[in-house]
Amino acid sequence: MLQENTLQLRVQYYETDGQQRVHHANYLNYFERGRVEMLRVAGLNYKDLEADGLLLVVTEIQVRYHTPAAFDDLLTLTTAVTAIKGVRIWHRYRIERGDDLVVQAESVIACIDRRGRPCRLPAFFQDLRRRNDRSRS
Amino acid sequence: MLQENTLQLRVQYYETDGQQRVHHANYLNYFERGRVEMLRVAGLNYKDLEADGLLLVVTEIQVRYHTPAAFDDLLTLTTAVTAIKGVRIWHRYRIERGDDLVVQAESVIACIDRRGRPCRLPAFFQDLRRRNDRSRS
Amino acid sequence: MLQENTLQLRVQYYETDGQQRVHHANYLNYFERGRVEMLRVAGLNYKDLEADGLLLVVTEIQVRYHTPAAFDDLLTLTTAVTAIKGVRIWHRYRIERGDDLVVQAESVIACIDRRGRPCRLPAFFQDLRRRNDRSRS
Amino acid sequence: MLQENTLQLRVQYYETDGQQRVHHANYLNYFERGRVEMLRVAGLNYKDLEADGLLLVVTEIQVRYHTPAAFDDLLTLTTAVTAIKGVRIWHRYRIERGDDLVVQAESVIACIDRRGRPCRLPAFFQDLRRRNDRSRS
Repeated sequence: MLQENTLQLRVQYYETDGQQRVHHANYLNYFERGRVEMLRVAGLNYKDLEADGLLLVVTEIQVRYHTPAAFDDLLTLTTAVTAIKGVRIWHRYRIERGDDLVVQAESVIACIDRRGRPCRLPAFFQDLRRRNDRSRS
Repeated sequence: MLQENTLQLRVQYYETDGQQRVHHANYLNYFERGRVEMLRVAGLNYKDLEADGLLLVVTEIQVRYHTPAAFDDLLTLTTAVTAIKGVRIWHRYRIERGDDLVVQAESVIACIDRRGRPCRLPAFFQDLRRRNDRSRS
Repeated sequence: MLQENTLQLRVQYYETDGQQRVHHANYLNYFERGRVEMLRVAGLNYKDLEADGLLLVVTEIQVRYHTPAAFDDLLTLTTAVTAIKGVRIWHRYRIERGDDLVVQAESVIACIDRRGRPCRLPAFFQDLRRRNDRSRS
Repeated sequence: MLQENTLQLRVQYYETDGQQRVHHANYLNYFERGRVEMLRVAGLNYKDLEADGLLLVVTEIQVRYHTPAAFDDLLTLTTAVTAIKGVRIWHRYRIERGDDLVVQAESVIACIDRRGRPCRLPAFFQDLRRRNDRSRS
């Protein structure tokens, strides 16, 4: 694991559905918040990346739903960078409510430009990979 | 009334909330669909407007909620242009389920460019206004 | 004004649209958060109200959009109860980014039961109204 | 493949994000529409299932994003039931725009009751499984 961030999330009413649980698509929004806040803690603003013409786009995501979350639940989201290779970043996510595991997920993000062409990752991620490579050797 | 369009909408599960009714914010999305489809019927694609650097943005909206709509309800949305003046367009909306009135609304839309400056309305709306002015005189 | 609450909101990426601004429908979600947090500060959990079979539903809303908000903007939402009468509560909302006014709104909320019948407001709102009536007399 | 359904979807403006493409979470909503419409074509209304106290909940989903979709794109969603076992249903999804593959996904759905306990699948899915078992023997 190269970088990790933990975030508290309060379930909003508009995020629930007719089953009175968080609609399953909304967890992908939570993961996005996790990625953005992890960057912020590291001193990087995703807004600036896009201003520089770089987009980080999700190319793969895999989610396992364990326990439903309801309106007003206070959730803990742990977001981790698990690998970086070429223009791609692997993340792992874990959402818990107290001791209960709510959702687990993994995603692959690619760095592209406005025309959709693969792009060298921003310096932050390259540094992260280098530190990781060094610690392994 | 200068132009009118009617559209059938099926309520999706993800549009409902914990009260098992359409979340009240989602009706604004329905109204947006109504505006886009009204343009399409008139031979105008909102996509092309934005490609030309024009944005139509909502500056005011007023909604009255009469009866809740639930998952799978088949709704009828009537969208009407009620007035056009300068860079602004007034719309009126009515959503019904059979004989029941679900929601009524009115909005004001302004035409701006990417920098947020007011912009001359596209030809379609100017023609609409002219036809209206003529029919009144 | 009977009660007021201020809340910081960070604009999320998934709340923006193709115009690269907060989609206008999402402000209604912000207002909902404002109402829920105002109740929480007053020691009342909206979750408990629904557990008691009471629903607070929006019956009218009026929004004026002044300046667009973009991804990552830090917004200040001020939510106020302006009047209470019968089963209805009037709120006023104001969203600012620094000194800029982003959005202003007003809504009417009604208290109903699961069958949609008007319901006596929870004690908190009745107390609020009584305190207001006294201060006026 | 036990059952298949094809659906046309028009990308709505509110489904796009600041990258001017469909926000990746919204594809999960499209898949949900695919499942609901596939049931409808088979004569089953998901609404009736919930009225009978049954919930179909997503327990796993895996999505691969190939090409972005933009506002107003007309997409073709193919939803297929690929397996049924115990209280679980496996679906496969494919979204195309003309000849371009936009998104591919797979999900696992479980049938539970309002208390979250696993529940015998509705007759429709049991019949589907039986027909499948017979055709294999």
